[in-house]
Amino acid sequence: MENIYGAAYYPEHWDRSLWQNHIDIMREYNIKWMRIGEFSWKLIEPEDEKYDFSLFDEAIELLYKSGINIIFGTPTAVPPIWLVKKYPEILPINENGEILGFGSRRHYCVPNKIYQKYALRVTEKVVERYVKYVKMWQIDNEFGCTNTDKCYSHASDIAFREWLKKKYKDINILNEKWGTPFWAQMYDNWEDINIPRKTVTFKNPHQVLDFYRFSSDAYIDFAKKQVKIIRKYSNAPITHNFMIDFLKIDYKKFSEILDLISWDNYITTEEYDPLRQAANHDLMRSLKDSPFIVMEQQPGRVNWRRINEEYPPSYLSMWLKQAYLHGSMGSLIFRFRELPYGAEQFHGALVSYDGRPRERLKEFSKTFSQLKGTLIPKKEVGIYFDYENVWIHEINHLNRNFSYWDSIVDMYKVVRKMGYNVDFVFSNTEINNYKLLIIPYAMELEDEFLERLRNYKGKLIVTAMSGIKDRYNWIIDTPPYG
Amino acid sequence: MENIYGAAYYPEHWDRSLWQNHIDIMREYNIKWMRIGEFSWKLIEPEDEKYDFSLFDEAIELLYKSGINIIFGTPTAVPPIWLVKKYPEILPINENGEILGFGSRRHYCVPNKIYQKYALRVTEKVVERYVKYVKMWQIDNEFGCTNTDKCYSHASDIAFREWLKKKYKDINILNEKWGTPFWAQMYDNWEDINIPRKTVTFKNPHQVLDFYRFSSDAYIDFAKKQVKIIRKYSNAPITHNFMIDFLKIDYKKFSEILDLISWDNYITTEEYDPLRQAANHDLMRSLKDSPFIVMEQQPGRVNWRRINEEYPPSYLSMWLKQAYLHGSMGSLIFRFRELPYGAEQFHGALVSYDGRPRERLKEFSKTFSQLKGTLIPKKEVGIYFDYENVWIHEINHLNRNFSYWDSIVDMYKVVRKMGYNVDFVFSNTEINNYKLLIIPYAMELEDEFLERLRNYKGKLIVTAMSGIKDRYNWIIDTPPYG
Amino acid sequence: MENIYGAAYYPEHWDRSLWQNHIDIMREYNIKWMRIGEFSWKLIEPEDEKYDFSLFDEAIELLYKSGINIIFGTPTAVPPIWLVKKYPEILPINENGEILGFGSRRHYCVPNKIYQKYALRVTEKVVERYVKYVKMWQIDNEFGCTNTDKCYSHASDIAFREWLKKKYKDINILNEKWGTPFWAQMYDNWEDINIPRKTVTFKNPHQVLDFYRFSSDAYIDFAKKQVKIIRKYSNAPITHNFMIDFLKIDYKKFSEILDLISWDNYITTEEYDPLRQAANHDLMRSLKDSPFIVMEQQPGRVNWRRINEEYPPSYLSMWLKQAYLHGSMGSLIFRFRELPYGAEQFHGALVSYDGRPRERLKEFSKTFSQLKGTLIPKKEVGIYFDYENVWIHEINHLNRNFSYWDSIVDMYKVVRKMGYNVDFVFSNTEINNYKLLIIPYAMELEDEFLERLRNYKGKLIVTAMSGIKDRYNWIIDTPPYG
Repeated sequence: MENIYGAAYYPEHWDRSLWQNHIDIMREYNIKWMRIGEFSWKLIEPEDEKYDFSLFDEAIELLYKSGINIIFGTPTAVPPIWLVKKYPEILPINENGEILGFGSRRHYCVPNKIYQKYALRVTEKVVERYVKYVKMWQIDNEFGCTNTDKCYSHASDIAFREWLKKKYKDINILNEKWGTPFWAQMYDNWEDINIPRKTVTFKNPHQVLDFYRFSSDAYIDFAKKQVKIIRKYSNAPITHNFMIDFLKIDYKKFSEILDLISWDNYITTEEYDPLRQAANHDLMRSLKDSPFIVMEQQPGRVNWRRINEEYPPSYLSMWLKQAYLHGSMGSLIFRFRELPYGAEQFHGALVSYDGRPRERLKEFSKTFSQLKGTLIPKKEVGIYFDYENVWIHEINHLNRNFSYWDSIVDMYKVVRKMGYNVDFVFSNTEINNYKLLIIPYAMELEDEFLERLRNYKGKLIVTAMSGIKDRYNWIIDTPPYG
Repeated sequence: MENIYGAAYYPEHWDRSLWQNHIDIMREYNIKWMRIGEFSWKLIEPEDEKYDFSLFDEAIELLYKSGINIIFGTPTAVPPIWLVKKYPEILPINENGEILGFGSRRHYCVPNKIYQKYALRVTEKVVERYVKYVKMWQIDNEFGCTNTDKCYSHASDIAFREWLKKKYKDINILNEKWGTPFWAQMYDNWEDINIPRKTVTFKNPHQVLDFYRFSSDAYIDFAKKQVKIIRKYSNAPITHNFMIDFLKIDYKKFSEILDLISWDNYITTEEYDPLRQAANHDLMRSLKDSPFIVMEQQPGRVNWRRINEEYPPSYLSMWLKQAYLHGSMGSLIFRFRELPYGAEQFHGALVSYDGRPRERLKEFSKTFSQLKGTLIPKKEVGIYFDYENVWIHEINHLNRNFSYWDSIVDMYKVVRKMGYNVDFVFSNTEINNYKLLIIPYAMELEDEFLERLRNYKGKLIVTAMSGIKDRYNWIIDTPPYG
Repeated sequence: MENIYGAAYYPEHWDRSLWQNHIDIMREYNIKWMRIGEFSWKLIEPEDEKYDFSLFDEAIELLYKSGINIIFGTPTAVPPIWLVKKYPEILPINENGEILGFGSRRHYCVPNKIYQKYALRVTEKVVERYVKYVKMWQIDNEFGCTNTDKCYSHASDIAFREWLKKKYKDINILNEKWGTPFWAQMYDNWEDINIPRKTVTFKNPHQVLDFYRFSSDAYIDFAKKQVKIIRKYSNAPITHNFMIDFLKIDYKKFSEILDLISWDNYITTEEYDPLRQAANHDLMRSLKDSPFIVMEQQPGRVNWRRINEEYPPSYLSMWLKQAYLHGSMGSLIFRFRELPYGAEQFHGALVSYDGRPRERLKEFSKTFSQLKGTLIPKKEVGIYFDYENVWIHEINHLNRNFSYWDSIVDMYKVVRKMGYNVDFVFSNTEINNYKLLIIPYAMELEDEFLERLRNYKGKLIVTAMSGIKDRYNWIIDTPPYG
């Protein structure tokens, strides 16, 4: 596959008379990839089961015949008003029990079966219609973004019980593994079990860990259903845009159903911290031990921070090169043109509000013309990382100020500053590729991985707090604690 | 009108046997104005449509014949328990969806039609009965105080839709002006539109701005209905007591239906900041370019701050003089006598808990005897201010630490420290009265005002962030941002 | 009674095959007291009115015949799932109106009559069955812990009205004492009165104080009912485990229905503060002017703090001695053995996760073998303390940063550092036993106590803010404030 440089483009935001001008600018700057469609549901299905493809038919045809490669995002992140009004129970409910209403995005509860039915139906319509134009598919958009990783609805209760039944089969086994004799929490019936909502004091840590897993699986299962639909029609690669510093969905498990990894490269720290961005590049490459895409690249200023600083065009150039040096096969700028209205109205782009190419568009074009092929860093140091361990640390910890991921990033920085490449290593990674393996703060280590560690030939560093818990979140009988 | 110095007085708080003693003290200290009645609903209408005027008949008669001028506050700020029990839906709902119950004050949702029906009924009863005694009317009390500026009830949804229909007429125009293609938020029916409640992430900024406007209008419309009732019977001037640093209701728009401006002068900053109080005096005078009243003057200690400091009597004297020098025609102290019970029991007053005149009463009397007529500062510098711009800054900003009003006050202080008088200037102010005009951070500037600016003869300072948005909260195509 | 050194023991947490080994360790280290049972409801009553005593029968028999004295905690702190499912209205509701669900502990609303019926039924079953084995009874566990001191349910409304009717008899008296003419809050019917939920602004301080009293009484009344049941069968002493720095239940009033005081000695301050622990020892001894027990002694690390530090065994030794020197007749370590699962899985104990005696077990055994009889400090200085004054300070204060209890502890420390013993003195304490009596910040002082103060022979220090309120939370007419 050739390198992938482009932008996010929303034909629905602009008068049709402007489209050709947009494409002219893309061609002038040699931009060949555009991601479209991921917030288009209401445009494509304005009423229940009434479809209107006219806008996207025209836009896609125009892009296609101009040689622009299309990445299409399935439109499931924004249920239209008619669906919300018909089935208000599809709305997400947060940890405080508050219903989050229509009027922004991601207003759905992923375990809700009605939502899924409608979402998969529109997905199939879109895939079927545009299969011949689309070079890559993106499933939905940023699963879990802005605290949508867990839904505290009744639909979640029902789906959680199903998930538990499948896992434990016998409720006595659940009682045993959840340690329910503590505070006399024994359950008699599956129907008595709820997702962990507000309680007087500390919740059952085994139940909570299962709820983290269930919530992660709920998104992965929904993605799997979309993959299945896309594969009925299309052989184009399928991805989902992962997020930096997002740890609520098990991206390692998720990556198994994706053809390639892509992620959205924004600055999330108060001060710009290049090594933190680098750590995420390396994590993303490590997920499939393979090149990846930056699906959304911060152009300069964004709109969603407390203080939204401007960055000069040279920063964009640097960010593109950093991605490339860590294994990226391309970056798409978010977004093509600045939008004068809507919730992101101060977000920067390649083209100005009034349609002029920004300096950063020139810098972008010049920079990516120099980035050919892909570079994969030589394997030197492996750092063990595991999403379930994030959750175990979060649920129950000796020191609630401790952050597992931040501490791993600290360790990553030390290794990088000493001049070594880093891969992140998971339970099924071939560890003998690394001269040095570091296992920091990994409370839970699977038996199988421990077994493979015994045959590891390189140098091994294991920190405190590693290997003290089993997969049910029980402390192993002989821990290093007093 | 002669100068207006007095206090807030609550005959219903005291045994009738004490009233004459209170009046004797008023007369001894030459106090001629008392505001009464604004929390009297349940006393006047103890049961639905059963009225009992005996207490106020007696108190008013006593005040009247003693030469005390009466300002009467319509009693609509405290719906009685029988009304709340009969129609619990009149209770306000806050942004978190919590119903705020009976047991303090301002427990009503202003767009609720049932509330308005009962509130206007008791208003008419009161006005009709006391018209011959009352020298000035105050509508309700501190609209919007303690976060009652917006109500998140179903009544608000209904009223908001009516407001929108009147504004946009055609739902397609609403969709266009609200930029609903962004995140596919298009509406098909007016009934599908709600006030902006909790969402997953950033709301539609055009919808939110309209909700700010609607909420401000809801109070102004309610006031208008009270004005209409009062005017059926009375020619006495009508006011409402505005608050310092309160920016949620468009006081400029509100001032058009009032005969004179009054406001409540309390210290709201952590440290006492005389120039901030001065800025509010100047703002209040500028609203109608006319003298105003301090309807409630902080006497010394209050009860509602984190730390309620005592101020010596000389401070009260200073506060009265400051008001006078900025255009006040008088100040009423809140309150006449300290109350040993109730939610304000530590609040200072002119007369002590046990009925003795405080030192500050003597200081008060001595000071106001020196303050004759009104002084209006000479017009020198104008600073542009606009309530809608407060809201636009709040809704969507590059820097969420930025405060439009605080920044204007900073600028005000610079000008004042250079020795110049300041008026606040609004879109319809005659700007050629000022030698210098400053337009700080005014994101939205109306075309008409921009047109008049072109003909302005004086010196003009316009800061960054000015003039970059239109009245629908859209960025103008060629903004100064990168 | 001989000294009481032991631990909290939960046979239900361990396989029966381990019990004998546990008892062997107890005997080896000469531990003769175990508290059991306080979280056993579901184990003893697995279904509604179906009892299963097998586990506790066997465990108790084993402990008993091994010479271990049993303290039995009534199991009412953990309503079983079947009860919660049958009557979800027994769940507590917090100040935010959120229902706190099944899944931790203390998930009940104490004024709920259904809860009480079931709780007292299981209590009677347990007492009846184990009366001959039990040397001491503990009622429930840590009433009010983790913000369960007040319940905002409908059951609380109903019970509060009954409480008010009993107190005021005539609603006109309630209106008078609550100062309802302020903000026109007059009530016509008892049914119109609710507990104080969220309001727009400051609540009625007299209503709130009564709600504090009602909430404290609700627990004390529930305890009284348990005492009555226990006394039908048993003459063993009855206690309840009080908490350090817990001020929401009037422990002085509560202590009247208990045979002896016990409390749970944990470090609650960010930095370990020995004199704060000492102050609580002295407070607990003063409640009944009598020796007390430390029912739960922190062993070293706990699990519920932000940062859970480890303390070496020598600290435990010190804590035992401190308790002894302040009047303790013994301490029970929480807990006997570390538990690998459940919400307290990182909590330290005497025996390790894998069943080995910890160093601190040896230290514990060695230390308590030296502590014989009880020591009661000689009466020197009395410091007045009163639970209602805690509430009065909290409800309505000139300075919301001020803490009555923290300020008393500051004063306590000064006196202790000067080398004097301190007793806490209550309204009915014989004050002439003290050479010096300090009355700090006691806003409300009862007339009877003031009368006795007049006859006090020693030195008296009374601070500002003392004696300025009456028992209805009214300011007394001639307060020291300006």
